[in-house]
Amino acid sequence: MALKSFINVPADHPFPIQNLPYGVFSPKGQAPRCGVAIGDFVLDLPMLVHAGLLTHRDADLRTAFDSPSLNGFMALGKQVWSDVRRRLQELLNEHTGVLRDDPSLRSRAFLRRDSVTMHVPSQIGDYTDFYSSRQHATNVGTMFRDPDNALLPNWLHIPVGYHGRASSVVVSGTPVRRPVGQTKPGEGPPVFGPCRLLDFELEMGFFTGSGNPLGHPIPLDEATDHIFGLALVNDWSARDIQKWEYVPLGPFLAKNFATTVSPWIVPLEALEPFRVEREPQDPEPLPYLNGDPQGLYNIELEVAIQGSGMKAPHVVCRSNMRHLYWTMAQQLTHHTVTGCNLRPGDLLASGTISGPEPESYGSMLELAWRGTKPIAMPDGSERKFLQDGDSVIMTGWAQGEGYRIGFGEAEGTVLPARQV
Amino acid sequence: MALKSFINVPADHPFPIQNLPYGVFSPKGQAPRCGVAIGDFVLDLPMLVHAGLLTHRDADLRTAFDSPSLNGFMALGKQVWSDVRRRLQELLNEHTGVLRDDPSLRSRAFLRRDSVTMHVPSQIGDYTDFYSSRQHATNVGTMFRDPDNALLPNWLHIPVGYHGRASSVVVSGTPVRRPVGQTKPGEGPPVFGPCRLLDFELEMGFFTGSGNPLGHPIPLDEATDHIFGLALVNDWSARDIQKWEYVPLGPFLAKNFATTVSPWIVPLEALEPFRVEREPQDPEPLPYLNGDPQGLYNIELEVAIQGSGMKAPHVVCRSNMRHLYWTMAQQLTHHTVTGCNLRPGDLLASGTISGPEPESYGSMLELAWRGTKPIAMPDGSERKFLQDGDSVIMTGWAQGEGYRIGFGEAEGTVLPARQV
Repeated sequence: MALKSFINVPADHPFPIQNLPYGVFSPKGQAPRCGVAIGDFVLDLPMLVHAGLLTHRDADLRTAFDSPSLNGFMALGKQVWSDVRRRLQELLNEHTGVLRDDPSLRSRAFLRRDSVTMHVPSQIGDYTDFYSSRQHATNVGTMFRDPDNALLPNWLHIPVGYHGRASSVVVSGTPVRRPVGQTKPGEGPPVFGPCRLLDFELEMGFFTGSGNPLGHPIPLDEATDHIFGLALVNDWSARDIQKWEYVPLGPFLAKNFATTVSPWIVPLEALEPFRVEREPQDPEPLPYLNGDPQGLYNIELEVAIQGSGMKAPHVVCRSNMRHLYWTMAQQLTHHTVTGCNLRPGDLLASGTISGPEPESYGSMLELAWRGTKPIAMPDGSERKFLQDGDSVIMTGWAQGEGYRIGFGEAEGTVLPARQV
Repeated sequence: MALKSFINVPADHPFPIQNLPYGVFSPKGQAPRCGVAIGDFVLDLPMLVHAGLLTHRDADLRTAFDSPSLNGFMALGKQVWSDVRRRLQELLNEHTGVLRDDPSLRSRAFLRRDSVTMHVPSQIGDYTDFYSSRQHATNVGTMFRDPDNALLPNWLHIPVGYHGRASSVVVSGTPVRRPVGQTKPGEGPPVFGPCRLLDFELEMGFFTGSGNPLGHPIPLDEATDHIFGLALVNDWSARDIQKWEYVPLGPFLAKNFATTVSPWIVPLEALEPFRVEREPQDPEPLPYLNGDPQGLYNIELEVAIQGSGMKAPHVVCRSNMRHLYWTMAQQLTHHTVTGCNLRPGDLLASGTISGPEPESYGSMLELAWRGTKPIAMPDGSERKFLQDGDSVIMTGWAQGEGYRIGFGEAEGTVLPARQV
């Protein structure tokens, strides 16, 4: 019989009992703490611990959950995550009375999600961004370099990535101010002013678990155990700033003004039924990277834009996490192969996830093909890049039999540039 | 009359009363806390607060100093740093009796530096590395691109930089294991194995103070107020890994296996007498970056290598911080111009500091000119890049009248690669 909670959750709702994503929330006027989303509610985890309903023989769950970040829980490792998840599913099960039948406990343990403020779920020590969609890398190479040699020579051999900025990772709902910076239009001298080519990048990110000591790489067959869970990521990009600054050290200011994450981290275990095979990798990667054939997930992804004059969001992109070439485990193993240490709560993102069809491209740059194919919007306007007032809404879900594992939203609205 | 302490400090000692650098130390078996170096001693700051000798009307110095990092103190801002520094100089002055004449207090407040363990002085939220020496950028461009167009088009317009890895910043004395990774020798397929071209990069880094909120850039005329102090940085680099991975997103694994910092942060105020003019910038930078003509410091820098069979270190490089083209304030302002937020304790490093003379080049790559001019060592060996067992020792100092503002050391010894 299908797993079901006493909390009512419609079949198309993102947060059924099969999901149970983790986040950090604060009730009005109270300190941030860890919770789990179930239906339209947040389950207050420190409250459960306090009531004696949530314990673990090997772990101090009170310290882990009565905290403004999930780092402590992430550090406890896979076995504890799994045990706690099982216990939460038991407590929330329609047949379990302990919460269901105790109105006083229930009213303290469950808060309406629309009444709380969400926060970035971990204190991100380091944020890394990869570039792992072949279609995206091919599109960019075709537009800016050589259509016949669109992929750079290293791309099929290593999950190319770079270090991003951790301080400017913001939670869904945080407005994003159009950045001001230096660009070089055409052959003239560089100029200073608001970014003209503001873009989103549709990505999935994962948060790391216990991590590894400096000098001790994580082999590929252990890498998945170090993944705590996944979230949606919008790696906002200032294309004109990027173009002028990125040679030879990579993107810097073009990406560090904001990165939006969805507030709920979906545990890897919830996604297990949705594993899919990645495409065969040819050439075969070097042995340290060769493996993880089932390392991708069938997660539908959508990006919608709602302009300030529009009545509803308009979907501009439909993609899927399975379109990635390199898996999360391959990214993680590559990241640590030199000995680089990961810490609990680090964020590693996929890079823009573009599928094979033009409507599945994960950025405005690709969707409007460098401005040559403007996107028509329902209010009669068109978009080459993002306009002030545009709200960019990313959603994602894995469709199960009669339930959905949803990611909620990664949303951000573009504010006009500051006056200069 | 010259400022002098009752603690005996010879004229060529790095840590006189004019310096008073901050660090984080732990006495054997005790928790890390904040201290100041004076001569061969560490002054225990929480102990001074506890004894009622160090207070501030606007700041909780107990919380700031009884901490395993300096972030709390850094967040208090320039006025508090300045007030505390003045108070410490008063307490340590040869004419002040309160510490000098109290043997019991003295024995608790001063610990021998060789008896304590030093730590990375701040919890580094983000580490950024610039590329601000014109000679270094020219050398690299000459070797790898075109001697006639060695500088890339953006270099004279923006302080080029990239995000580094914060987790792998280690304190002086931490051994550095030669990384293993993917490289592509010549025309053949990529291979996996120990880095063959391991290098150091001589840099200076600065730690940030109170920082700025996301979306609020720091203008150039306020930037210096946000600099807490300076330290030596060795940005270890795996040149062969870097060459294969860095296009188009910049250095990643080639730099993230270790970055060494010296344990003592020299306050900007201690360096004030050593300000020097930067060279004129032509073309003139855009207005937001145009200024800070006195933004460099006359700080002598040296790199020595001691191979495992050598009796003493051999100096391979003599450079100076004044050889930088872009100043710290310019780097900081550029970093925030898009709205990127800095947090207390972030580390921003200069990039390799190479001077005009070949013996002032700040990396093995340049000193041995891509392996074509091996460096002769006193034991008869030679170096193109670093060998296992090599200890790389960076030192720096500003020479005053009868005293030195020293930086101590940023040292790391190369361990052999792990077996693969």
